[in-house]
Amino acid sequence: MAVKSVRLFTDNSLNLLLGGQLKYIDIAYQTYGRLNAEKSNAVLICHALTGDAEPYIEPRQAGSEQKGWWQNFMGAGLALDTDHYFFICSNVLGGCKGSTGPSSINPSTNKPYGSQFPAITIQDIVKAEKALLDELQIPHLHAVIGGSFGGMQATQWAVDYPDRVARVVNLCSSLYFSAEAIGFNHVMRQAIVTDPNFNNGDYYADKAPEQGLAVARMLGMLTYRTDIQLNKAFGRAQKQSPEYFGDYFQVESYLSYQGKKFLDRFDANSYLHLTRALDLYDPAMNYNNDIKKALSRIKARYTLVAVANDQLFKTPDMHKSKQLLQETGVQLDYHEFYSDFGHDAFLVEYELFESMIRKGLL
Amino acid sequence: MAVKSVRLFTDNSLNLLLGGQLKYIDIAYQTYGRLNAEKSNAVLICHALTGDAEPYIEPRQAGSEQKGWWQNFMGAGLALDTDHYFFICSNVLGGCKGSTGPSSINPSTNKPYGSQFPAITIQDIVKAEKALLDELQIPHLHAVIGGSFGGMQATQWAVDYPDRVARVVNLCSSLYFSAEAIGFNHVMRQAIVTDPNFNNGDYYADKAPEQGLAVARMLGMLTYRTDIQLNKAFGRAQKQSPEYFGDYFQVESYLSYQGKKFLDRFDANSYLHLTRALDLYDPAMNYNNDIKKALSRIKARYTLVAVANDQLFKTPDMHKSKQLLQETGVQLDYHEFYSDFGHDAFLVEYELFESMIRKGLL
Repeated sequence: MAVKSVRLFTDNSLNLLLGGQLKYIDIAYQTYGRLNAEKSNAVLICHALTGDAEPYIEPRQAGSEQKGWWQNFMGAGLALDTDHYFFICSNVLGGCKGSTGPSSINPSTNKPYGSQFPAITIQDIVKAEKALLDELQIPHLHAVIGGSFGGMQATQWAVDYPDRVARVVNLCSSLYFSAEAIGFNHVMRQAIVTDPNFNNGDYYADKAPEQGLAVARMLGMLTYRTDIQLNKAFGRAQKQSPEYFGDYFQVESYLSYQGKKFLDRFDANSYLHLTRALDLYDPAMNYNNDIKKALSRIKARYTLVAVANDQLFKTPDMHKSKQLLQETGVQLDYHEFYSDFGHDAFLVEYELFESMIRKGLL
Repeated sequence: MAVKSVRLFTDNSLNLLLGGQLKYIDIAYQTYGRLNAEKSNAVLICHALTGDAEPYIEPRQAGSEQKGWWQNFMGAGLALDTDHYFFICSNVLGGCKGSTGPSSINPSTNKPYGSQFPAITIQDIVKAEKALLDELQIPHLHAVIGGSFGGMQATQWAVDYPDRVARVVNLCSSLYFSAEAIGFNHVMRQAIVTDPNFNNGDYYADKAPEQGLAVARMLGMLTYRTDIQLNKAFGRAQKQSPEYFGDYFQVESYLSYQGKKFLDRFDANSYLHLTRALDLYDPAMNYNNDIKKALSRIKARYTLVAVANDQLFKTPDMHKSKQLLQETGVQLDYHEFYSDFGHDAFLVEYELFESMIRKGLL
């Protein structure tokens, strides 16, 4: 089942939160399960930073190994139960997996946007998702669910469209990105923008800033896991033919492989734009920077799941988010537990998350 | 008081642990306090990854702001008490602060070593330090003290020369670098070696791989601190004139400044060699890879200080080191506490470390 695509904002432009506009926005999306007659079982899935519109990929044929990023979470009877819910997942605005982003053709120049792509916020991404649901004639969401970057979208949905969202399930994501996490994003961005192929973002006719993007991905991977998981998986094992300043230890070989593999599926400009959207995220940006005012708009029941040893969204920030939500009277269900997989747990540890997702969607 | 320098290995070469040899090795060093008549009060200070031979710099004149990396720890009556001890500190072999390293002139070619510089281990660094002490006619060390990379040197001193070291004080450093920490080093090294100016390490006649080295330093800084300290220092404060993919938040401006400042004082090849020495460090490398055999050689009283929220040397590794030392019968004094400064605490938090250093040196 190929990803579907719809062109939105053909009549009027999307006005972006930080200024600028976009017109003729393509949104790639996928659906799973069936929308019931009352249209009361729609669940929007919001993907994480480098995700796409396909949390699940239908096994087409024996031997096909392509899997969605939540493959093990979705199916008849599973936590993301396709017998009960109608799931919609779209690639984010600014991404590179079918939706309009910096690598898309700018209709006014017939060239890729590149450096001309405007600054994108979580709020803009949510507006585009809202436009998709309008187009699909889905007036109300049983729930919005997402992890990390997707959890921020879920939060903003409940803030901006309180009457359209009954439940939020936010996994491994706080209301703000921390100074340290911004710091990691900064290092990753600097690796990209100082790559000599970057050319201010206009690299589509030439070589892409691949070295920078690979370095960024390797660093990202380290923030997604934990020392414990890497120790169990690799320890201090060395490669058979170690390269002294290259891949010497197995863990280096793993990271290099992840960095290289990423180049086939991600665009450096999208990485820059989406990481900056992460940094900038603030639910109150459109509400006079008054977080209480923003959060008090939420009518949805809110499930927040923290992994105690998440190295990207650390517990001080998760606890602060929990407190803010409680103080503004949001009906909150908070869970916290350890996982060797740290931040990546929400993509890997089905058993740990199953009951919380089920309960959050109930 | 300028740094002193001595040329060692003028008659015979230093045979390196991983193969290769070095001859005519310059070692830059500094001393503080006075060696007593019995030569019983000598303390060797081993510096961390990017340190140098000057933990303390004499205030020469009003207005001079140059300080040593342990400036606040050293002086009459302080933990590093110059009234009682005679301190020696040398720049490590492979470094770039006066001792022979990749940027030094190779006497056999009259050009900088660059790519020809051999692989250096902690064991080799300790051998060069031992040769310095022989040259200074210091037969016995009251103590060896160091943090991080310096703590590894202190450990190896007690393993390789058990009769010459009475005390080890190891701050924020375990017996092995973890898979995760190797991963961070890998990302930093990849940023350097993929910099187009790197030229396989032979860049001294041309531009240095500055972008890569700056990215490496920024990442290093993040592993040296904690989310709590960065949150307190910067939070989510933005710059006055934010650059969208550059320095937008204050924490980014801080990191960029640290990255740039580092270029004035450090050589990329030294960074590569010393980070790899960190990764490879294993006290048992020269003892049939038998860690118990290596550690059982230690006769020194051993003080190990762990910062519980150190993000580079994490508690699972510190606890494993503690256990290994105890199991081999080393007389161990172990301390563990929290500091917002994480790994950098041993350079910053004099009050927290004072009593432990005093006790360790007693």
